[in-house]
Amino acid sequence: MRIEGVPASAGYAEGPLFELDRPPAVYTSKATPEEEKASLRAAIGKAVGRLMTMVETADSDAAGILEFHIAMLEDDALSGPAFASIDSGRPADAAWRQALDGEIAGYEASDQDYFRARAGDLRDIRDQVLHALTDDGGSTAPAGAILYGQDIAPTRFLETDWSSGGGIALKAGSTASHVAMLARSRGVPMVVSLREPPAGLAGMALLDAEHGNIVLAPSPAEIGSFRQSSSSFAARQGKAQTFLARPALTKAGTAVRVQVNIADPSDVDAIDIATCDGVGLMRTEFLFGKTLPDEETQYRAYRKVLEWAGDKPVTIRTVDAGGDKPVPGFTVEEGNPFLGLRGIRLSLARLDIFRVQIRALLRAAPHGNLRVMFPMIATAEEYERAAGLFADEQAALTARGTAQRMPPLGIMVEVPSVAIAPEALAGAAFFSIGSNDLTQYVMAAARDNAAVAHLNSVRHPAVLRLIGSVTAFGRDNGIPVSLCGDAGGDPASIPALLEAGLRDLSVPPAQLAMAKAAIADISV
Amino acid sequence: MRIEGVPASAGYAEGPLFELDRPPAVYTSKATPEEEKASLRAAIGKAVGRLMTMVETADSDAAGILEFHIAMLEDDALSGPAFASIDSGRPADAAWRQALDGEIAGYEASDQDYFRARAGDLRDIRDQVLHALTDDGGSTAPAGAILYGQDIAPTRFLETDWSSGGGIALKAGSTASHVAMLARSRGVPMVVSLREPPAGLAGMALLDAEHGNIVLAPSPAEIGSFRQSSSSFAARQGKAQTFLARPALTKAGTAVRVQVNIADPSDVDAIDIATCDGVGLMRTEFLFGKTLPDEETQYRAYRKVLEWAGDKPVTIRTVDAGGDKPVPGFTVEEGNPFLGLRGIRLSLARLDIFRVQIRALLRAAPHGNLRVMFPMIATAEEYERAAGLFADEQAALTARGTAQRMPPLGIMVEVPSVAIAPEALAGAAFFSIGSNDLTQYVMAAARDNAAVAHLNSVRHPAVLRLIGSVTAFGRDNGIPVSLCGDAGGDPASIPALLEAGLRDLSVPPAQLAMAKAAIADISV
Repeated sequence: MRIEGVPASAGYAEGPLFELDRPPAVYTSKATPEEEKASLRAAIGKAVGRLMTMVETADSDAAGILEFHIAMLEDDALSGPAFASIDSGRPADAAWRQALDGEIAGYEASDQDYFRARAGDLRDIRDQVLHALTDDGGSTAPAGAILYGQDIAPTRFLETDWSSGGGIALKAGSTASHVAMLARSRGVPMVVSLREPPAGLAGMALLDAEHGNIVLAPSPAEIGSFRQSSSSFAARQGKAQTFLARPALTKAGTAVRVQVNIADPSDVDAIDIATCDGVGLMRTEFLFGKTLPDEETQYRAYRKVLEWAGDKPVTIRTVDAGGDKPVPGFTVEEGNPFLGLRGIRLSLARLDIFRVQIRALLRAAPHGNLRVMFPMIATAEEYERAAGLFADEQAALTARGTAQRMPPLGIMVEVPSVAIAPEALAGAAFFSIGSNDLTQYVMAAARDNAAVAHLNSVRHPAVLRLIGSVTAFGRDNGIPVSLCGDAGGDPASIPALLEAGLRDLSVPPAQLAMAKAAIADISV
Repeated sequence: MRIEGVPASAGYAEGPLFELDRPPAVYTSKATPEEEKASLRAAIGKAVGRLMTMVETADSDAAGILEFHIAMLEDDALSGPAFASIDSGRPADAAWRQALDGEIAGYEASDQDYFRARAGDLRDIRDQVLHALTDDGGSTAPAGAILYGQDIAPTRFLETDWSSGGGIALKAGSTASHVAMLARSRGVPMVVSLREPPAGLAGMALLDAEHGNIVLAPSPAEIGSFRQSSSSFAARQGKAQTFLARPALTKAGTAVRVQVNIADPSDVDAIDIATCDGVGLMRTEFLFGKTLPDEETQYRAYRKVLEWAGDKPVTIRTVDAGGDKPVPGFTVEEGNPFLGLRGIRLSLARLDIFRVQIRALLRAAPHGNLRVMFPMIATAEEYERAAGLFADEQAALTARGTAQRMPPLGIMVEVPSVAIAPEALAGAAFFSIGSNDLTQYVMAAARDNAAVAHLNSVRHPAVLRLIGSVTAFGRDNGIPVSLCGDAGGDPASIPALLEAGLRDLSVPPAQLAMAKAAIADISV
């Protein structure tokens, strides 16, 4: 039986199915409340211990989530009601479940997205302890398994051992989720939006996350053809590695610049600067977590990446909060956040926050080849206001004798208005096409909504036509044009992008080799 | 003091300010619980009586809301806890407030938008009874007043006597809200998104809802200039009436077709068919209220309008649920509903519901000059699937010997992909540009979000360029192109639309005269 879905991270996995949504095993009640309490304490300790082991190998983003979970588990305010409930005669599993469900309901009822999202963390914690109580090993999938279910929490992804293969197959999910991004960067095969639920199934399965499907109870013929596709994919990947160190050239010898997208300064630790043409997109949302970042913290983060890149360009995007990236104390609640106060709109509405970032960027500029770009520009006025703020802050820094430099100021081309009528923005130093947002607006299909995923394609002729006309406008007017959306790293989309005239792509580091290999296969 | 805002319904009002958000007057406690209960019973009766009076003159949409409020007030489950609380010694006002606030909190905590929206109805009811208890007349504004505050409920709009003028000035609000639509159709001046809150102010004010501002404590000079603008507006309106009965012609003698947009079959009762060229947009969402409509109900509604229009065309849009139009049992909860499963996407996902509408349309077609269009078409596949369903249902009706006819099938051009690459949809019988949605996608600015209202302009060059190119494509390929968004009825936008090549507009009935007058002023 073959179930079709949408590929979220290319690759192949063959292994036993592991159900994500299964309930914990039945708990055996103890004789006395004291034993019940000891049992709960041990289970919490076990869950904390597992999280601590995970923290050791996690990167900074993941470690933040895990440490938050540990802090909650160690908080007496969370476990106190469960212990009290045991005293009044309840077994440990029911007591813990009741206490956590009460907390979860409270978070779910919040009118703040941020707090509602925390309910997911609490459910995670609840289940980890319940599994530890019954010692059913439930929360850890066997190595090499294909995890399937409705959706998957980032912590679940992080605690799974992917070293012997395995993959993910989801009924819901999204190619733009945090887990999908993690899966792509670590090469874990993942398929989302499966047509039918695989619930209740077990046994071996074949996950083809290159084309987007899963085969259950495969026939020998299906296994044979799967292994052929899988080794051909592995061969292509191996071959791609040989392209990594060379400049990207098409079959016809046309040079293509390939830069990388990074989301955190620590990302560059794993990249050899010789393998890429610079950083085409450095996101700055990582700075805007639980608190708003001060100027010094920002300055240090920008300077680290600039110094790593040497004389290669580093394009830093001013904070693109809002949309699917809420920041407490900064973003606002909206009915349609993708069409709301986000990106440059929010920065221009909160000058107190924006000016701090501008000063940090101006001060970091002398340490490398900095370029700065503004997200979500829709009108020329927005660009002019933002550029004016850079000029003001530069004057203020100069007056104080602080070292600084004005970087070239460019824009993201992702709001259709700019792609349709780019002449209004001809004053920008460069254009960087944000294909993810541009596609979702042109198709009117949110990039995180599985129900409209079939419409969200960068290869729709209307999207490619806009990309082509922006590229031509840039060429005719001496404005450099690059593309930094996910499409730039997708071998299936690269031919159409070069066909549209692009010669400058910025891709996730994990896609660098495959992108260069794909370019070498194109005749333009 | 002058406060700037955004015009939501053009016109001028001069009158006393009336604060929408003011608390009820202080309630005088009675001597015994029996007297308290009598007092609460009387107040509920008074509130019900007021609502019943309003139902008599309300149109069908409004009557539905009002009857829902009456049913809630007469429900013992709602008032029971308040009476019980009086028995335990609480005064009537505190008892009622506490009982309602408990209910409201329950609705607000729901994770269903539909139920959360009901919290607003309960707040309305709570306040109506509280005002009736203190007999402060608080819930009815004096005739001719300018209502101001944070936002305004539709019921508040409906219970206000607008016959002697008056207007609305809101800090929040939206030009796309239900109240804004009601205000435009009844000619009530309204300004939204005021820069500063007018809270705590009183006295006379001047509301200029043509340009979008309110002047508080006006000087004699300000009053003079306001009255001049106001009478010039009235003169233009009066003059416009003389255009109503004539065909629309520009100054150069170019003929422009002007049709009307209707949202409910009863809308046509107030329109003389001789004053328009047909119905350019008949919405069908009115049918999808508390329950899903059966085929017969739909058939009768469509037939009524077709027979009214005679041989003039009536363009009925298949149901455009989703987005800002949730329907219980049909639409789904989404993070970005404007970019989600709405319009034709939802119809194609729920064929059980769509096929009923298709049969009703096929059966209604022989009764007039019907055309059918699909909302939110993004790809040719969607059009082909929808047209295929019409063919299937026609075959089934024919096999049963039921009278029917296949109407011309056209599309809304509102998703940018179709406007950018219209050639894929060259098989459609006609194009109708939906300027509201097209603008919000091209500008990536939700049309109901005050924080990005400054970006949401149909007159942005990118939007006009798309409108122009779609119109030219239609002309070159023999596909009729019209426009049925709000811009078609806005005198400030009409010149740009004719300039872009349009010769066919569909406008709200209340804007018909002004639109024809504006057309007569243009030299194309």
